[in-house]
Amino acid sequence: MVTSSRESISTAAPSGFRDFLNLEAKRRAKLIKIISDVYESFGFSPIDTPALENSNVLLSSGGGEENEKLIFKVLKRGDKLKAALESQNENEISDLGMRFDLTVPLSRVVANYRNEIHFPWKVYHIANVWRAERAQKGRFREFTQCDVDIVGSKSHAAELEVIQVVAHAVAKAGAENFELRINDRRLLSSLAEYFGFKGNLINPFSIALDKKDKAKPEEIRRELDELLGKKCSNEIDELISGNLSFEKIKKINPEVSGELKNLIDQLKALNLPLSAITFDPSLARGLSYYTGAVFELRHPSAGYSLGGGGRYDQLIGRFSKQEIPACGFSIGFDRLLLLLTETEKAKNSVLFIPIFSEDLRIPLCHLANGLRREGITVDVYPDEAKLKTQFKYAADLQYQWVLIVGEDEWKTKTFKLKDFSSGQETSVSEANLISHLKKFTFK
Amino acid sequence: MVTSSRESISTAAPSGFRDFLNLEAKRRAKLIKIISDVYESFGFSPIDTPALENSNVLLSSGGGEENEKLIFKVLKRGDKLKAALESQNENEISDLGMRFDLTVPLSRVVANYRNEIHFPWKVYHIANVWRAERAQKGRFREFTQCDVDIVGSKSHAAELEVIQVVAHAVAKAGAENFELRINDRRLLSSLAEYFGFKGNLINPFSIALDKKDKAKPEEIRRELDELLGKKCSNEIDELISGNLSFEKIKKINPEVSGELKNLIDQLKALNLPLSAITFDPSLARGLSYYTGAVFELRHPSAGYSLGGGGRYDQLIGRFSKQEIPACGFSIGFDRLLLLLTETEKAKNSVLFIPIFSEDLRIPLCHLANGLRREGITVDVYPDEAKLKTQFKYAADLQYQWVLIVGEDEWKTKTFKLKDFSSGQETSVSEANLISHLKKFTFK
Repeated sequence: MVTSSRESISTAAPSGFRDFLNLEAKRRAKLIKIISDVYESFGFSPIDTPALENSNVLLSSGGGEENEKLIFKVLKRGDKLKAALESQNENEISDLGMRFDLTVPLSRVVANYRNEIHFPWKVYHIANVWRAERAQKGRFREFTQCDVDIVGSKSHAAELEVIQVVAHAVAKAGAENFELRINDRRLLSSLAEYFGFKGNLINPFSIALDKKDKAKPEEIRRELDELLGKKCSNEIDELISGNLSFEKIKKINPEVSGELKNLIDQLKALNLPLSAITFDPSLARGLSYYTGAVFELRHPSAGYSLGGGGRYDQLIGRFSKQEIPACGFSIGFDRLLLLLTETEKAKNSVLFIPIFSEDLRIPLCHLANGLRREGITVDVYPDEAKLKTQFKYAADLQYQWVLIVGEDEWKTKTFKLKDFSSGQETSVSEANLISHLKKFTFK
Repeated sequence: MVTSSRESISTAAPSGFRDFLNLEAKRRAKLIKIISDVYESFGFSPIDTPALENSNVLLSSGGGEENEKLIFKVLKRGDKLKAALESQNENEISDLGMRFDLTVPLSRVVANYRNEIHFPWKVYHIANVWRAERAQKGRFREFTQCDVDIVGSKSHAAELEVIQVVAHAVAKAGAENFELRINDRRLLSSLAEYFGFKGNLINPFSIALDKKDKAKPEEIRRELDELLGKKCSNEIDELISGNLSFEKIKKINPEVSGELKNLIDQLKALNLPLSAITFDPSLARGLSYYTGAVFELRHPSAGYSLGGGGRYDQLIGRFSKQEIPACGFSIGFDRLLLLLTETEKAKNSVLFIPIFSEDLRIPLCHLANGLRREGITVDVYPDEAKLKTQFKYAADLQYQWVLIVGEDEWKTKTFKLKDFSSGQETSVSEANLISHLKKFTFK
């Protein structure tokens, strides 16, 4: 044992970041596989993009200062850094930033490869994003998003498809009773104008409404009154509480409300694994790039959205000379994982082989490899240690099955298979081992 | 179409970074799955750690200035940044950095969770790392590593296990004729001393030898002569060319060369899927944290290593008060992928369903979902378009199978299954569809 001579270094992950070990890491990998398998089964293709983007790409997403604050900015390097340091200006000394969502990178990719892509492009992207937010409970600076997008279709057929695939993905993950809330940004703009919020006031109007998870109705009302510079019509309370009737909205914007009703009717006809599909005229979804339908997944046991999306027909045009319509849906992976009950206790279905003497290590490695070829997971003890230590290791890892092959068993080619949970031992000949394991142990 | 009013933004990925689309992204995902499945079949458990680490963690890895130059450094945020900008010092204005390997994060994790981990810990980590190197052909700033490690075992049983699992993983990936080269850092130190390089000169001696992929033997000789300050003994040419006999090395360090011979004999007895296991007394593996055996994977068709590893018994001690022995192996994922021949042309085994009329969209979505439940990947066209456009889409994506369900087919519940490659059409009733597809189409 050596005492470190350095000043002590904190070995925790940086604030707001997380380490995942063993069963927790396995659970995450399993959920990612379920979601990507469902996405693929609908014919979506994967993409992957860099963690870092050029700063001007990230800053072109249209979110303004709010988005810029979210970016982890990366220092220039070498001589360029030296020259820039003197400026004492953060935008001079950094040239790259970490992506804060997967929609901006997708839009850049579409603009860049638009001559090679076959439109409509059904694409999915499961990856981490980073946001320099204040670390707090349940809010992390690194988290996983699972996006599906259809690029190049103006039709509601695209909304139908992304909502369908996400509903099936969360259902396959084991989550029930999800509610889909849906609205249209154009409807929200019409409502804003109806209540007197015009031009520059439309966006702040939406942002204020979007706070209904966190703020009380009277607080939102106060904010809207302040924004308008006078008391809003009392009808606005119906909007804030989500009780504004569809009939009233239809009068305000007949065309878009008709389209939206049609989409909702189609969604209902699909019998999706959702508990409800609800029109919510106050739903805004924070991001400023949405231009049409917006939607989010809610669950009765969570006070926040578990995923959201919508149509963004103008974002790609910011990177390309050509506007390309697009529509997407993103599952909040970490929030979904939190929700999934951990009832199914992950069984560690591993066969453990202790090493009775080092002379047996190579023959037992051969034996293990034969079993692995048959799809059985085998852990051979990777150190020289007393049997007691080896059995403690197997117990600590909650392995149920141990294959006992000492000198005698090796000579007679008859092994003992021990069930750790019952203590029961069964003799199995080498010739029957694979069929026995497949039949009785790892069926 | 709208012309962007902004100055034009480059839509390429940042220099040295890559976008992966469609089949290329699928190939990467498939290879990651193969490697992680083999790692799991040997009883290794996954971990995942943050992309960003605290700067002092990254700087404690012992690589000195060379490693520091590789780090993408992240700016402090908010008020802390404002205060630091005045310093004009890059280490003052950044507090986080992107990980440049997976061994430093693993060492931090072991130190942090050492009371919860069951040792020996068999662990794997497949993730991206970032290096701020000059972008050049075949060298990227973001790439994937596939690490396996055994932490807490001093025995060569650990080397045996990590070499075994990596040999099986690359074989399963479809790569043949891999050679494993192996050496021991302690042997290298003895050789350094034997040739007159003592104390501070041992590390530069190893680094010079490690350049044999890139430099000519006479260039390495010149560097070593300069380092020593006089002409080295001519015997050193045998070391540089890899021809120094094992007999000679055994005399220089009998104990370590005996251990190494024993490890190589055990490896050979395992009949691993490798073309050769070779002792290479000049093998150093650049990283300064290795303390015992070092090894790398070579392939006749590549002039560089495709993976490497070794024993690092003192790295974890830099983060912990306690030294914990460890040994690991890392596959260079991108290099392996380059090597794998693309003979198997990825067949796009997707069933395509065009939409003959929008009235049929919902019934066809139902039909598609029934097929997906049976494990068939189905792409329903996600836009409103003429049939010609829809068939062009299917041809562009190289879909082989199209299910034709127009108004007539829907009424009679008898569909046409068209093979795009032969042009042949088969009639299939709805009742027989799933069994027919499973039997003839997606068998």
